[in-house]
Amino acid sequence: MKLNCDLGESYGAWTMGQDELVMPWIDMANIACGFHASDPLIMHKTVAMALKHGVDIGAHPSYHDLAGFGRRSIVHTADEVVALMLYQIGALEGICRAENCRLAYVKPHGALNNDMMKDARLLQAVMESVARYRPGLALMIPVTRGYSDHQSLADRVGLPLIFEAFADRAYDDNGHLVSRSQSGAVHHDPDVIVSQALSFAEKGGITSVSGQWLDLPATSLCVHGDNDHALAAVKAIRAALQTIGQ
Amino acid sequence: MKLNCDLGESYGAWTMGQDELVMPWIDMANIACGFHASDPLIMHKTVAMALKHGVDIGAHPSYHDLAGFGRRSIVHTADEVVALMLYQIGALEGICRAENCRLAYVKPHGALNNDMMKDARLLQAVMESVARYRPGLALMIPVTRGYSDHQSLADRVGLPLIFEAFADRAYDDNGHLVSRSQSGAVHHDPDVIVSQALSFAEKGGITSVSGQWLDLPATSLCVHGDNDHALAAVKAIRAALQTIGQ
Amino acid sequence: MKLNCDLGESYGAWTMGQDELVMPWIDMANIACGFHASDPLIMHKTVAMALKHGVDIGAHPSYHDLAGFGRRSIVHTADEVVALMLYQIGALEGICRAENCRLAYVKPHGALNNDMMKDARLLQAVMESVARYRPGLALMIPVTRGYSDHQSLADRVGLPLIFEAFADRAYDDNGHLVSRSQSGAVHHDPDVIVSQALSFAEKGGITSVSGQWLDLPATSLCVHGDNDHALAAVKAIRAALQTIGQ
Amino acid sequence: MKLNCDLGESYGAWTMGQDELVMPWIDMANIACGFHASDPLIMHKTVAMALKHGVDIGAHPSYHDLAGFGRRSIVHTADEVVALMLYQIGALEGICRAENCRLAYVKPHGALNNDMMKDARLLQAVMESVARYRPGLALMIPVTRGYSDHQSLADRVGLPLIFEAFADRAYDDNGHLVSRSQSGAVHHDPDVIVSQALSFAEKGGITSVSGQWLDLPATSLCVHGDNDHALAAVKAIRAALQTIGQ
Repeated sequence: MKLNCDLGESYGAWTMGQDELVMPWIDMANIACGFHASDPLIMHKTVAMALKHGVDIGAHPSYHDLAGFGRRSIVHTADEVVALMLYQIGALEGICRAENCRLAYVKPHGALNNDMMKDARLLQAVMESVARYRPGLALMIPVTRGYSDHQSLADRVGLPLIFEAFADRAYDDNGHLVSRSQSGAVHHDPDVIVSQALSFAEKGGITSVSGQWLDLPATSLCVHGDNDHALAAVKAIRAALQTIGQ
Repeated sequence: MKLNCDLGESYGAWTMGQDELVMPWIDMANIACGFHASDPLIMHKTVAMALKHGVDIGAHPSYHDLAGFGRRSIVHTADEVVALMLYQIGALEGICRAENCRLAYVKPHGALNNDMMKDARLLQAVMESVARYRPGLALMIPVTRGYSDHQSLADRVGLPLIFEAFADRAYDDNGHLVSRSQSGAVHHDPDVIVSQALSFAEKGGITSVSGQWLDLPATSLCVHGDNDHALAAVKAIRAALQTIGQ
Repeated sequence: MKLNCDLGESYGAWTMGQDELVMPWIDMANIACGFHASDPLIMHKTVAMALKHGVDIGAHPSYHDLAGFGRRSIVHTADEVVALMLYQIGALEGICRAENCRLAYVKPHGALNNDMMKDARLLQAVMESVARYRPGLALMIPVTRGYSDHQSLADRVGLPLIFEAFADRAYDDNGHLVSRSQSGAVHHDPDVIVSQALSFAEKGGITSVSGQWLDLPATSLCVHGDNDHALAAVKAIRAALQTIGQ
Repeated sequence: MKLNCDLGESYGAWTMGQDELVMPWIDMANIACGFHASDPLIMHKTVAMALKHGVDIGAHPSYHDLAGFGRRSIVHTADEVVALMLYQIGALEGICRAENCRLAYVKPHGALNNDMMKDARLLQAVMESVARYRPGLALMIPVTRGYSDHQSLADRVGLPLIFEAFADRAYDDNGHLVSRSQSGAVHHDPDVIVSQALSFAEKGGITSVSGQWLDLPATSLCVHGDNDHALAAVKAIRAALQTIGQ
């Protein structure tokens, strides 16, 4: 079970997150590619920081919407999505090349991530772009009850998948995240968070809010490092995973 | 002697140039990378068009200034230039990867090109970025009387250079282009243009506006395709080069 | 019956439309405000051109999406729409102030225009922004069979409305434009275009594609000037309106 | 003696400054207009906050350079500067109109401010834009030993000037700020800051780093609120000014 985190989300004179504090505790850095956050220099610094800590580097591409931080859906054709994915993946890897490393995976950001999970046409465009970029490059998508269908789609284009889950979010019976607008959507109790992380790691699933068992074979947990509370949770999850040898 | 042309300079709903008309006549396509012009989809279409005609693909990176078309100097640190070069080179090659091709060279655009020829710190940053991106990737710079110094600088980082000249522009005694604000700066007579192209190709230099011989060992001529007049000149140069077996 | 046209849609080095050719034939210029097209200098030049021809100036605000030319829906809160409307209206009027004129009306552009006609919350935000900007400033919206409801909404905030129609587009039985994806959606025959313009002007409505009469009390017709065909239609409509004293 | 502060410099999801904490202590809010920072919604919120505290509202226009926070010089023609000033002034006042208030003054930001103080052509363009926007609208510029020349230039176009100084910065013998790259450029001792503020307020000038008296008739002091130290200085200056009845 790997820990991944969205990083490199500052922009110009504006700072976001505490990348230096969380980088030592994670395995995979999802680095913004300049479309929802970051700029070339921040990307370069973030890549160097990930390398220093031996953290895998993933591209975190987005719709082009700095003002909306990539959180707003913008209608795109499949061809546009393929092109914007290739552009951003290549841009980040261009910076990696100067540091003699390369990308391990790609995780779409925000509204693009949400939209592709609802629209088969977009998911296919995303898969196709990663597969065409380089054989072996992995795509990270949220694990849902439809994971085996997603795996089949990916297998068709020879695309490795990484299934992502959240230790600090409640899941409904369909294996979707409970909306943040509902109470109980986000876990704040460190014990609950660690327990859910261990359940994903040891049992390949968790119990939904209604008490139903969900097979969700996640291979990476998304963590956050933008405040002290979140950072403490990352360390607690890391420690718990080590006790079970992961 | 190769013919290169700036292409892919449309943006969103706005069209610039007549890429389809000039592509069949050139050897090298300098494709805009989204910072002064173009967007991912236009880049993808332009790459496909170049491939169809067997034209080499070069990245045409710029300062980030769509409103100013990359023609305005913006002060940058060397680190910023390295990062913006890597970003744009990688972005275009990301798109090339999906088409199973790769970049042959890089030619900085507009104000970035002008500034690097005046500021050794910037030229070094540009050279370093291309050399670090991939050994063997070439950098295209204007040929001037300082060409051997430029070659020495490039040799130090193992960077192949392509020296670019203009068949339709007058040169002063220092081997610089005569400013467009002066009369006689731009050649309009097709015979003069063809003659200057042949002089570069056969003699490795031309005569300056004052009549002085200039050694300018250009290996590529920059042509334009944005109007009928320019297009006719491209065809005339191409025909003349063929008569001398180039 | 006034003729309105979208103008000032060039951007930086890119040109769109033939503003100088159409300006003499219209009554109202919808000038882009920098969010889907135009920049401050182009806005200034377009305002000066409108003044020279005695053409009323209207703001043509949009979602902020230069790459998509404002044609892509982007989800916004009502507060965001109010703010982006005020910003763009003010920006254009800032330029008008230097020319001792002021805005006569506001016409939302593209996806913002489409979205507000489907989403009462957005339409209210648009109406509120114009009414709060300055009492007496008019809002131009498409005339539909719901025009009296729209008038009631506008009356509540003391907002003058201008109802816009198209002489070159077919209307369905609900008073909506037939989608461009369907055959017959756009009229190309100058006689049909002029006839539809006269019907709006003289009879306050037209016949739908199915032959049903539609009361559509338009007070302005949207015309285009971006090609010779469109320009000829503008002149034909202008001539026909003059024959009936409008 | 009025206290002014740069505010509204957040952007989208990124926060900068602590506007709520400093607003109660100042007289004049220089609000970013979307070109170096801010967006329409943040502008709207900042205007509302200023009104709540009875603070005068000023436009803080900039070169269009979000990535560089308006701190990088970009070459512009005078016409371009006039247009970008009018655009941003109007945009902020568009938002003010909805709150039934209007702008009191304009203070150019960052590189535009620096450039206009070195280039008479730009300063004239800036003055002309503010004067043409609305008679009586004031322009805030740094007070230097050339203040009477600046006043003469402004008088020619009927433009009120506000002369700005800094209580926490050392001045050289020419009345310019000592560069931040030199030691002693920035005062950190609260007593020194308060003393310099009182000298501007009571004596119309201060002593330069070399001990020479400088007549600098400032009418406003620029303060900062982005950290606790700066905020404490604002409160100390405010208290000291009150003791002398200002």
